[in-house]
Amino acid sequence: MEMTGSTTVLSAEAVTAYHRDGYVLAPGRLPAVAMTRLSAAVPAILDEDSARRIMERDGVTVRSVYGPHLADQTVASLSRLTELAGAAMDLIGEPVYVHQSKVNVKAPFVGDQWQWHQDYIYWLQDDGIREPNLVNAAVFLDEVNEFNGPLTFVPGSHDQGVLAAVEKEGLPIGYEDAPQWVSTLTADEKYGVRHDVIERLVRSRGLVSPKGPAGSVLFFHPNILHASSQNISPFGRRTLILVYNGVSNPATNTENPRPEFLAARDTTPIAVGE
Amino acid sequence: MEMTGSTTVLSAEAVTAYHRDGYVLAPGRLPAVAMTRLSAAVPAILDEDSARRIMERDGVTVRSVYGPHLADQTVASLSRLTELAGAAMDLIGEPVYVHQSKVNVKAPFVGDQWQWHQDYIYWLQDDGIREPNLVNAAVFLDEVNEFNGPLTFVPGSHDQGVLAAVEKEGLPIGYEDAPQWVSTLTADEKYGVRHDVIERLVRSRGLVSPKGPAGSVLFFHPNILHASSQNISPFGRRTLILVYNGVSNPATNTENPRPEFLAARDTTPIAVGE
Repeated sequence: MEMTGSTTVLSAEAVTAYHRDGYVLAPGRLPAVAMTRLSAAVPAILDEDSARRIMERDGVTVRSVYGPHLADQTVASLSRLTELAGAAMDLIGEPVYVHQSKVNVKAPFVGDQWQWHQDYIYWLQDDGIREPNLVNAAVFLDEVNEFNGPLTFVPGSHDQGVLAAVEKEGLPIGYEDAPQWVSTLTADEKYGVRHDVIERLVRSRGLVSPKGPAGSVLFFHPNILHASSQNISPFGRRTLILVYNGVSNPATNTENPRPEFLAARDTTPIAVGE
Repeated sequence: MEMTGSTTVLSAEAVTAYHRDGYVLAPGRLPAVAMTRLSAAVPAILDEDSARRIMERDGVTVRSVYGPHLADQTVASLSRLTELAGAAMDLIGEPVYVHQSKVNVKAPFVGDQWQWHQDYIYWLQDDGIREPNLVNAAVFLDEVNEFNGPLTFVPGSHDQGVLAAVEKEGLPIGYEDAPQWVSTLTADEKYGVRHDVIERLVRSRGLVSPKGPAGSVLFFHPNILHASSQNISPFGRRTLILVYNGVSNPATNTENPRPEFLAARDTTPIAVGE
């Protein structure tokens, strides 16, 4: 709750680190009471059989559930926390709303990889969001360690703009009859980045996998190049991701919009802390 | 080259650590001249199209090449190094020979996982080796780091004996016409270990992924439970593994033996350093 310059939640150093590196792991953790409520809410979120739920390639393990901030009051309430929405305002520089949310499960033993990608290309191409002025807030629901498939960043790669050169055709196996937007959610990334581009960046910028206990919050930029490996460990690695967007930067694709749970039309600014 | 008790190469502390933990990362690295020769020999070893070469599930990337100590003079010579064969004698307690060898490639971006398994069950069931008195010497041909799919051990799990409960039937996809021994070499382990068994052990013993620069040597026990994740990084993670066995513990399966490049019949003890 440090007051530094125009920021209200994050320190000036944290904001500077975010803009320089494309990510910042917030010091401390979310309040224990909020984490306890969230942990209690997650099983029902994962259990609900709906179009918002995406399975792993094995067809039986939950990979992700989209839009929990719309379907679950605990997540909706959490999304207004000062430590999340207030911090997002510090990073974006204006009032924010939640453009998208998801729980990524990365199940023990079978949780699959996320291939190298940037997030913003999806929000640009599919939703018509004109500026990469969003921020991902990843809330660790389990400890993230070196064994359970941590998010891996190329630090500073957000300054490269959109790197994707490959748009994949068609729908992945098992999803042939699904709506087209499903292709943006499975283990096969629709907007791939060429291996030589990734290698060049990694050789100059390195790699980093931020780790921490449950309750940690990792903010990362929509243009940072990232991936995560499969989870070979018996440790879960569930993450709640809230994507905050500035209210001046709404989705503009009105012809063929993705469902509300993937791309919010309601841009009412969050009343932080309420 | 410390002389401690009956050991000649490894310190008494390293030998104690090996027997307690099931692995030990040797201090220092192999001589630079040996590593330079080995690095120069590896491309030809990987290029040779033979039954000793196993591909990844993608069918185009080399996963492993077996028996390089039989096919390549540089590897044959390396296998007699004091730092390897002498250290293996310290760990096994008698003269040794090479039962098996392989180069595991774990290619950048596409190198696949190795599922949880122990090694000894293969040498017991398929080769009739009666005691788990062998040792793997893994020579790092590239730096091993947290991003390129390091070997991951459950420390101390070698004291559990053989844990495998599942023998998989049949041959993996793409290998339907291959000889039966191929099923022991691909990404689908023939002798699996149940997830609840792995979880129980990991919760009491933990996990560890030894890391180090190229030229490092990691010794590990044939009954240690281990796995490795896919390699999502642009960094290669090639490893030469030499499996040393005590000369009093030969393969006894003479009815349906695996090929010599998987299970040596020639148990002539290595003349260390020659």
